[in-house]
Amino acid sequence: MKAVVFSDEEGLKLDNNYPKPVAQRGEALIKVTMAGICNTDYEITKGYMGYNGVLGHEFIGIVEEVNIEGISDDLAQKGKSLVGKRVTAEISYGCDDPNCEWCAVKNYRHCPNRHTLGIVAKDGCMAEYVTMPINVIFEIPNEVEDEQAVFVEPLAAACEITEQLHIQPIQKVVVLGDGKLGLTTALTLHAQCLDVTLIGKHRNKLDIAKAQGVKTILLNDAEINNSYDVVVEATGSVSGFETSLGLVKPRGVLVLKSTIATGKELNLAPIVINEITVLGSRCGQFKPALHLLKNKRIDFKPFISKVYSVDDAIEAFEANKQKDTIKILLKF
Amino acid sequence: MKAVVFSDEEGLKLDNNYPKPVAQRGEALIKVTMAGICNTDYEITKGYMGYNGVLGHEFIGIVEEVNIEGISDDLAQKGKSLVGKRVTAEISYGCDDPNCEWCAVKNYRHCPNRHTLGIVAKDGCMAEYVTMPINVIFEIPNEVEDEQAVFVEPLAAACEITEQLHIQPIQKVVVLGDGKLGLTTALTLHAQCLDVTLIGKHRNKLDIAKAQGVKTILLNDAEINNSYDVVVEATGSVSGFETSLGLVKPRGVLVLKSTIATGKELNLAPIVINEITVLGSRCGQFKPALHLLKNKRIDFKPFISKVYSVDDAIEAFEANKQKDTIKILLKF
Repeated sequence: MKAVVFSDEEGLKLDNNYPKPVAQRGEALIKVTMAGICNTDYEITKGYMGYNGVLGHEFIGIVEEVNIEGISDDLAQKGKSLVGKRVTAEISYGCDDPNCEWCAVKNYRHCPNRHTLGIVAKDGCMAEYVTMPINVIFEIPNEVEDEQAVFVEPLAAACEITEQLHIQPIQKVVVLGDGKLGLTTALTLHAQCLDVTLIGKHRNKLDIAKAQGVKTILLNDAEINNSYDVVVEATGSVSGFETSLGLVKPRGVLVLKSTIATGKELNLAPIVINEITVLGSRCGQFKPALHLLKNKRIDFKPFISKVYSVDDAIEAFEANKQKDTIKILLKF
Repeated sequence: MKAVVFSDEEGLKLDNNYPKPVAQRGEALIKVTMAGICNTDYEITKGYMGYNGVLGHEFIGIVEEVNIEGISDDLAQKGKSLVGKRVTAEISYGCDDPNCEWCAVKNYRHCPNRHTLGIVAKDGCMAEYVTMPINVIFEIPNEVEDEQAVFVEPLAAACEITEQLHIQPIQKVVVLGDGKLGLTTALTLHAQCLDVTLIGKHRNKLDIAKAQGVKTILLNDAEINNSYDVVVEATGSVSGFETSLGLVKPRGVLVLKSTIATGKELNLAPIVINEITVLGSRCGQFKPALHLLKNKRIDFKPFISKVYSVDDAIEAFEANKQKDTIKILLKF
């Protein structure tokens, strides 16, 4: 099958003869129809996580078959009901050892022996087929078009913030960074009826959020005077981290939504002096994200810069690097 | 009067003719009897906070007079009752502007126009006399000896952790660093009946905490395997910060108790990947600290490396730099 593969030896390439995966016990075989390029995919091609294999963790597809041999009746029934359905899947699954405290509460994202689609010990979704455990697969509601549904994973990551943190409606929230991560986060917090402002450097990107009701400010016009209760850092840059420390109130919360590029010294003293809470926030659960999509609370169409055929995947990765690009999708 | 002064021009010196302060409206004039050297004092002599003036923020003394002209009856009564009493004072006081959200809730520590003893816009306590507003002065209970009472400020800073964070008795807590900050923090959390382990490099320092019931481990023997719910970073070093990220569980809390020395790149990616909460924690309220002292829940005597006369203050600062030193006190 066709697959977009990264290896230390050969770099990024399109492999036309990658072995088709086989659904193991409790897994479904999914024919991928669409996948999104995330900046994490690009980071992996530069060595992040030391991952080698099929890339990709944002996708939708159709379940072709399920392997329900010897699994519980409930799960087998769910599996059977999924065949032929349009689905997506959470990106991590755990060891399911009864002694694993994370798997016991179904928080597979923190299982120390987890597999993460296209990131840790599991071939990703940028291929004609992918397998995933039935218990992390979600059927996509009929109301949600493919071009919206393919955003469920980054949307879930934005929903993670309010899973971790109680933000009061009276509090002032700011999102720093107008890339796809910042836009998704600002639109999500806005959809959750919170008082959110998006700060970024690009008027054209800010306008996507503005058109859907988010307050926006160009970075040059922003007052950096410790006045926000909650700041979401979504630039991934050291300067963005420093600006965030200037935006957040004493005793406020700085949500770290992207890993900060190193290469410059960081001054953490303001965290102690102003007693800031820095909250690391990563992937999220799909249920609240699908709820938002079903209720059409966010329109992701304006994010789509271009849709490429998988045959042009290398070109698509090049396009993803361009400053003006927001989201690049791959069609299978 | 005698005062230990730092200035950019002359560095650290003992000034025998520093002007004696005058109690302003609402203030008390306190004759200092004992002061402690904190590492922050030493950092200031290296340029931290850009502060110039009398050093010191840990002290006890006797109130000589109060200026109660035109202040509220309640405060005037408190002021009068303090004359002749053995006291200490919280280190920050605010602008008391009725529109200041921090002063309104008496959290002077975060007032943007605050004065902080020997650190921000206010001469410190390493002098024969100091003035402080009556509303931040506390009488020292009779049960508490001078050599214990002089530790109230760092003890309050340790109490700040449980003011900010709810630590459950079932949770595993570790303090990293066996300097005076780490020792004080470990003993305080232990006094609060929490399950705390102190990790450090110095058997002789760890033994001070061990003698009072704290579990201790030498750093070389410690397992760094993401197994603690709460980690308190009390080394102030980049390597300590990195070790802390290795000690804390996914979704756990890393309390940053000291400002991290820069000069080396920090990798913040584990904060996002493991969804860690990094909580900056600074000074604390004196009331819970005095409660602990009154109930003799911690013995600070083993901390005292040496007591110097103020006349030997420069020598005392030199002694404070030695590896084996825990606490140096100045007597007036």
